[in-house]
Amino acid sequence: MNTLTGLILLSGSSPSTTNIHYLSGFTAPDPFLYLKTQTGGILLVSPMEKGRACKQSTPGTQVFTPEDLGLKGKKIGNQVEQIRALMEKAGVRRLKVSSDFPVGLFQTLEKKGIKISVDKNPACPERKIKSAAEISKLRKSQQAAVASMKAGIALIGSAEIGPKNELYIGKEKLTSEKVRHLIHKTLIEYDCAGVETIVAGGDQGTDPHERGHGPLFAGQSIIMDIFPRSEKTGYWGDITRTVCRGPANPELKKLYNAVKAAQLAALKAVKPGICADEIHRLCQQIFEKRGFQTLEKEGRHVGFIHGTGHGVGLDIHELPRVGRSGEILEVGNIITIEPGLYYPGLGGVRIEDTVVVTKTGYSFLAACPKKFELL
Amino acid sequence: MNTLTGLILLSGSSPSTTNIHYLSGFTAPDPFLYLKTQTGGILLVSPMEKGRACKQSTPGTQVFTPEDLGLKGKKIGNQVEQIRALMEKAGVRRLKVSSDFPVGLFQTLEKKGIKISVDKNPACPERKIKSAAEISKLRKSQQAAVASMKAGIALIGSAEIGPKNELYIGKEKLTSEKVRHLIHKTLIEYDCAGVETIVAGGDQGTDPHERGHGPLFAGQSIIMDIFPRSEKTGYWGDITRTVCRGPANPELKKLYNAVKAAQLAALKAVKPGICADEIHRLCQQIFEKRGFQTLEKEGRHVGFIHGTGHGVGLDIHELPRVGRSGEILEVGNIITIEPGLYYPGLGGVRIEDTVVVTKTGYSFLAACPKKFELL
Repeated sequence: MNTLTGLILLSGSSPSTTNIHYLSGFTAPDPFLYLKTQTGGILLVSPMEKGRACKQSTPGTQVFTPEDLGLKGKKIGNQVEQIRALMEKAGVRRLKVSSDFPVGLFQTLEKKGIKISVDKNPACPERKIKSAAEISKLRKSQQAAVASMKAGIALIGSAEIGPKNELYIGKEKLTSEKVRHLIHKTLIEYDCAGVETIVAGGDQGTDPHERGHGPLFAGQSIIMDIFPRSEKTGYWGDITRTVCRGPANPELKKLYNAVKAAQLAALKAVKPGICADEIHRLCQQIFEKRGFQTLEKEGRHVGFIHGTGHGVGLDIHELPRVGRSGEILEVGNIITIEPGLYYPGLGGVRIEDTVVVTKTGYSFLAACPKKFELL
Repeated sequence: MNTLTGLILLSGSSPSTTNIHYLSGFTAPDPFLYLKTQTGGILLVSPMEKGRACKQSTPGTQVFTPEDLGLKGKKIGNQVEQIRALMEKAGVRRLKVSSDFPVGLFQTLEKKGIKISVDKNPACPERKIKSAAEISKLRKSQQAAVASMKAGIALIGSAEIGPKNELYIGKEKLTSEKVRHLIHKTLIEYDCAGVETIVAGGDQGTDPHERGHGPLFAGQSIIMDIFPRSEKTGYWGDITRTVCRGPANPELKKLYNAVKAAQLAALKAVKPGICADEIHRLCQQIFEKRGFQTLEKEGRHVGFIHGTGHGVGLDIHELPRVGRSGEILEVGNIITIEPGLYYPGLGGVRIEDTVVVTKTGYSFLAACPKKFELL
């Protein structure tokens, strides 16, 4: 990027918002602009936000309001005028935007004679490599995830088994909702928010995006997938465990052991320089070897029907992916390793840890035991 | 829209995601496509999502996977090919997108010869008018907001006042964080999630977007702004109260009474046919009459520095706005009325209720007492 070209980012749509957060340290509920040039970054915020923006933004970030840049009357709230004023302030002649920039504003800027183009490269590729400070923030969110997972597992483990195999706590049926409530309350103690947490038993767990609802039963696999976001730092954690209250039937145990073996093998393969696709293929091979096929059955895809993992940071899903995208792992990547198997009629199993890629391999952000049968 | 033109929506960026939720009833963590034609809607989801999409989507919505539409190999994951296949399936020749559509994909579609244009009108203007079913969902989220507000107020009201005016619960200092934790835990009981909840005392409350942190004190105004989202329905609630533990000084009382008077007058003005700007001007006039000016002071804007309200629905901020945009209120609008005054050194006060516009005026979604001094 030469000094005359600036990258303009608009908060409000997901990747750009977290990119601005990453670059400037600032977040706000209402949309605002950020101009990145070779010499630094400029925030354009409303007068209401200025004090907070000055306090929270990373050193070297300039903060202006439309009024500071000389805009008056109706021009104050006009994004085109705001961007024009920002460009003038920074001595920028041409703009780049990332792919997720809203097409409406892009076309308006074009029509107004501003030289603007789309840069298809990620706006912040450096986000893939986490700093020590970021790893520490991610570790805290992961510790919150582990604490709430332990609380959820303890609740299911303490449940009594009713005559029809329903789980009970005292006289009340134990439901997905109740386990989720306990998990979310535990997360709050760690200043984290859990949203869309999965507690899905039996066939519900065979749809990886089903959150789970209603009574839980003994002898079924129960998937718990918890991904808290720290309210303070914005960084995420991500963990999944699968448990079974009471003994599991031999077939379900085999399913669990296959996923556990695949996850362990995948973790062992994590190291700098490896192509992440290899890790995914390793899981596929282990499943096939153990007779767990991935195929379409009665119109549904069953088996290992998702990728092995993804990066975690200010977004819950970010680069690098661990699947079929050919990314090479580097020291400082933070990724999940989460193989799973899903067969309606039998159940779903997924085991997930979030790890940091180290010089020699990987290390867990936070440790959490793996135990299937809660007897 | 003629039968040959379809509106294509991509989930993942905020307004489009909630528009798809509104139109199709379906949500998912990963991006997916929705094509709206004159005759109905089509969802294009991954095989993993198909089962849930068929179950959750509104009657009449067609659900396909890329494979269902005949895509094979690398084309399966290619959004351009997916959109082309969707258009063919629906007999659509031209596409429209809303302003927030990502410019990168828009340009790629254009380059591939697809006739595509930006429609600057809102994709779902009908969202402004809530159905009875929606009002019922919004009411539940608002009831959660009220319950957690009452819990927060009770906690502050029960605090003892220490020698330096700090608030104590037992031997521990009462902080913004602790009040927020209680609020969030209460919301969970109602299947709602609270994020970015504001509990801001004293000068912190004079920045309307400051969440608040650290010890709370007697004699200061404490703003609590709670906006929970139902995990089940996706609809939001929104409420703000300002309280003061122990007696407030006369100037702070005047500030509170001015905001209370403005909010009451604004509520009374709510009715179908009124221009929302009038309601905003009414608040401005009341503040000016009582000597509370809005101006810039030492580089900060003080006084009444935000709009009077906004629509609430599947987005926390949606149409109609109550400010300077000239929108006319209609029966079935759900809006907040939330005037506020902010003066560093004195404090901040905001009072907010969410109401539905009725034939004769307004009604609260859920009632919550207003009491400033907790003695």
